[in-house]
Amino acid sequence: MLRTHTCGQLRKTDVGTEVTLCGWVESKRDHGGAVFIDLRDRYGLTQVVVGPPEADAAMIDQAGRVSTESVILIRGNVADRLEGKTNKKLPTGDIEVRSVHFEILNTCETPPFTPSQSDLPGEDLRLKYRFLDLRRPEMLRAMVLRSSIVKAMRDYFAEHDFIDVETPILGRSTPEGARDYLVPSRVHPSKFYALPQSPQLYKQILMVAGFDRYIQVARCFRDEDLRADRQPEFTQLDLEMSFVDSDDVIGLIDGLVAKTAKEILGKEVQLPLPRITYEEAMRRFGHDAPDLRFDMEIVDITSVAAKTEFRVFRGTADAGNFVRGIPVKNAATKYSRRQIDELTEYVKNDFGAKGLAWFRVEDDGTLWSPISKNLEPEHLEEIKTLMAGEPGDLLMFLADTWETTCKGLSGLRRRLASELGLIDPEALNCSWVTEFPMFDKDEETGSWNAMHHPFTAPLASDLELLKDDPSKCRAQAYDLVINGSEAGGGTIRIHDPATQSVVFDLLGIDAETAEDRFGFLLNALKYGAPPHGGIALGIDRWVMLFAGLDNIREVIAFPKTQKAADLMTEAPGGVDKAQLEELFLRTAKVPK
Amino acid sequence: MLRTHTCGQLRKTDVGTEVTLCGWVESKRDHGGAVFIDLRDRYGLTQVVVGPPEADAAMIDQAGRVSTESVILIRGNVADRLEGKTNKKLPTGDIEVRSVHFEILNTCETPPFTPSQSDLPGEDLRLKYRFLDLRRPEMLRAMVLRSSIVKAMRDYFAEHDFIDVETPILGRSTPEGARDYLVPSRVHPSKFYALPQSPQLYKQILMVAGFDRYIQVARCFRDEDLRADRQPEFTQLDLEMSFVDSDDVIGLIDGLVAKTAKEILGKEVQLPLPRITYEEAMRRFGHDAPDLRFDMEIVDITSVAAKTEFRVFRGTADAGNFVRGIPVKNAATKYSRRQIDELTEYVKNDFGAKGLAWFRVEDDGTLWSPISKNLEPEHLEEIKTLMAGEPGDLLMFLADTWETTCKGLSGLRRRLASELGLIDPEALNCSWVTEFPMFDKDEETGSWNAMHHPFTAPLASDLELLKDDPSKCRAQAYDLVINGSEAGGGTIRIHDPATQSVVFDLLGIDAETAEDRFGFLLNALKYGAPPHGGIALGIDRWVMLFAGLDNIREVIAFPKTQKAADLMTEAPGGVDKAQLEELFLRTAKVPK
Repeated sequence: MLRTHTCGQLRKTDVGTEVTLCGWVESKRDHGGAVFIDLRDRYGLTQVVVGPPEADAAMIDQAGRVSTESVILIRGNVADRLEGKTNKKLPTGDIEVRSVHFEILNTCETPPFTPSQSDLPGEDLRLKYRFLDLRRPEMLRAMVLRSSIVKAMRDYFAEHDFIDVETPILGRSTPEGARDYLVPSRVHPSKFYALPQSPQLYKQILMVAGFDRYIQVARCFRDEDLRADRQPEFTQLDLEMSFVDSDDVIGLIDGLVAKTAKEILGKEVQLPLPRITYEEAMRRFGHDAPDLRFDMEIVDITSVAAKTEFRVFRGTADAGNFVRGIPVKNAATKYSRRQIDELTEYVKNDFGAKGLAWFRVEDDGTLWSPISKNLEPEHLEEIKTLMAGEPGDLLMFLADTWETTCKGLSGLRRRLASELGLIDPEALNCSWVTEFPMFDKDEETGSWNAMHHPFTAPLASDLELLKDDPSKCRAQAYDLVINGSEAGGGTIRIHDPATQSVVFDLLGIDAETAEDRFGFLLNALKYGAPPHGGIALGIDRWVMLFAGLDNIREVIAFPKTQKAADLMTEAPGGVDKAQLEELFLRTAKVPK
Repeated sequence: MLRTHTCGQLRKTDVGTEVTLCGWVESKRDHGGAVFIDLRDRYGLTQVVVGPPEADAAMIDQAGRVSTESVILIRGNVADRLEGKTNKKLPTGDIEVRSVHFEILNTCETPPFTPSQSDLPGEDLRLKYRFLDLRRPEMLRAMVLRSSIVKAMRDYFAEHDFIDVETPILGRSTPEGARDYLVPSRVHPSKFYALPQSPQLYKQILMVAGFDRYIQVARCFRDEDLRADRQPEFTQLDLEMSFVDSDDVIGLIDGLVAKTAKEILGKEVQLPLPRITYEEAMRRFGHDAPDLRFDMEIVDITSVAAKTEFRVFRGTADAGNFVRGIPVKNAATKYSRRQIDELTEYVKNDFGAKGLAWFRVEDDGTLWSPISKNLEPEHLEEIKTLMAGEPGDLLMFLADTWETTCKGLSGLRRRLASELGLIDPEALNCSWVTEFPMFDKDEETGSWNAMHHPFTAPLASDLELLKDDPSKCRAQAYDLVINGSEAGGGTIRIHDPATQSVVFDLLGIDAETAEDRFGFLLNALKYGAPPHGGIALGIDRWVMLFAGLDNIREVIAFPKTQKAADLMTEAPGGVDKAQLEELFLRTAKVPK
């Protein structure tokens, strides 16, 4: 190595040693005829002094002219810092290195921003100059954290006898869910590979092959219209096990959560992680990935609403819909009428709610609201009791369909918790949501869609419902929720051809379509498929949650923008005509 | 878990325990009113007995009818096998499980082949039914070995402070070397991503970002005309380090080789691994990845040839070409005239040699050959001395250009060693070849090509040669060779813009082309690039060598054929017209 030590390594005990350091010039100042440089590398920061008597005038001059972020090599002696000049915040803050040899390894042109500047430039500039952005300690920390989390996961699964198997990236297009990225084949003109949306079919094949326990940190691809937290390519920890039920997979991942929380964050997680059913999650929190870091549970007051003369409440109840609300503790004085109007606009615009009803619990225990005059005192009292309302609380209600009350109240819950500071930023709250419905109905066409994927097994107890009432049929499906975000999801798969056939029928997948889409899996299932199931964990999401960040691009070294572009490499780019000719492809006219 | 134990777990100490096993019916036989089943899973084989008194007639009947490779679950009691019926070869061979409950979890249709059959079907059938093929113990062993090797590598680099960073799969086309796989962009019509041939540019960017030590097990893609040992997608262990020279990278990988050899194969490897220069490798073995598991080194006898009157030898020497040979110890009686004729055809057809000269060392120490009459006895004696020939040896020579003698003799060396059984199948012979030439000349156009890639740094001592005689300029490049195969290769990179510019000039890469191809890297190098270098190890190749296999497809779970097709999934496949329309693409007519 060109260096003898890193910039994070030297301590008081090294005083007197001659060392060689390499790194970047983080900052530089002249003081008393000497040049003081904060020299940075991945491991830390060391103060270097280029001054008399060790350095001659030429060296001091050269050091004085070196630009910030240039790469230098210095040889020198470790010395105590002068009294009063030590820096207790820095592990190397007791010492400095007095340079006897100074060498510029590479000069840095004036950068558009520096890693140490306090005001962060716009994200586009950061992405274009990602090599500078990645020098920022926050980015380095996130990438090291990512590396450590994935390592801890791999170690865990290796201890549990999982085989790490690489499945193909150049696969076959199986149109379902999102759009595939296609790769034209040169050897087979007019044919295309597809990049995998997940290794789902391959991992099931591996179970048929008897691999018993498979794991992979797999790159997945979806050509979706991009939302803030989606990337065209993302990474999932993908696993599959044979001869298991939901409890086995959940128990295994419980152990993983506890291990990584402990090793990476130094946090103790109580096991088993809490489990609630999908039905309960929707009823209590209006969301299938409920944020359990705070209370504010949803309460159904439809039974009271049905008794009132208030048109909005009564009409909703009569139509078979719901009046549900959340108690916002001690918030009555924290939200002005104008702020409540803003919340009303929020539930209208974002969730299509018809409005927002609210009550303040007054000091005397009565409910007050612009609509309270429409309600009998005993009904108001009943509402207060159901909501466990206490003086100073704000009670908020939606009167709407089940879906709209769920979405609206869940949205309100999260927004209010954030605004009221109810969320402990240090919390790591993990839980499971289980027993998802097998299907959801496309209201327009009346057809059934698979809520997970078409290979998901129904609960054994719900097998009959497949025929009688598919809407009530629950799946052997489970989602891991961390801090109100889905951090993973899995299912036990159907391994029995008869059940698979009923599910395909329900989904409107006829034999030909099934054969075309996943014929090779259906074929494999005929040759001795074990009962099996698995899960996929979103690595990008995990790292984001563990790092306490809220932008997925902060935990990916070279992310793409929301328009799926890489600003640093300018991908996607144009290609030579000859390249397309070799693929027997032509670009069609793009409508303006 | 549905099972209490695996099929590899039960021992004599478990006798009397009630257990539940799941697995595949490997084989089945009726004996004395009972059905004996060899039940298999990933972990082993256990004998299950379905017979009286534990099993009733119905259960015995069911067991008797279950098809091979079906998946069953049995509950039963572990019992000693009858005396004389134990199987010492099987870890579970002392016991059997007497079934009290027998359940077919899934039936297997008649398979095209069974994992236990001794005659392997053709590779196409194996690939089409990969889920059956992967049940073969050899395949499972190879995949477990692969998983273990990669795990050991990751652990090693984690111990050495490397950060595992994922670089994009959807990248930018940088035409150089092999053909890119392209991915049309839907969001940016007429633009394309390219799948990476290697993460080369990204890993250099990470060094500029100060990551210091980067590692990734990276999927790479090359749309090449496929040879026997190439796959469209392959995996490499990719790493890069800052502030290092060749010795640092080589030393690090030395440690990796020793660790994996010890942990995976239980073999001690002496460190440091031997290093020879490219020049020496070509001189002694005619190949830049010499097989050092046996001797048979090349000897140059041009100086003698030049003195003879034998037209072929003399003419070669006079033309500035070479007469070089290999001594084949104790082979004089092992190769008949007809066999030597076959070797002659081999060097002619495969390497373009003009012919093969040979001598037998007779019992009296003289050389005999059809051409020996053309040579003076003292010249024959000189040749024998140079070749250290002893009675019974066969000496073989090519008289040709340097390149042809290298290729031909290297080919002969390997073929003869294999035919003569000189290669220890247990050997793991690792070494380095260093100081590769920077460039090789395209003889047709007279232009220079980069032997590694255009960012490779020259030896500091050869910097002047860049201008004076590029053909003599050596690179800071190093290849790891295992058992005569290149198992990895790397270089120290140019970090200095002036040297980079000279190299680009030599390679005929003008400023515009450079900007177009790797502008973002050149840009990054301006902002404080540290000296850096790295290496890439071919994981598929490593696993193949460690497993003692010679077909790369045996160490890949789902490989593609030489026509880049996946026979199981039938990828690449056709896609909907709508999918192409969304991409603004049309397929052009394919000429018949």
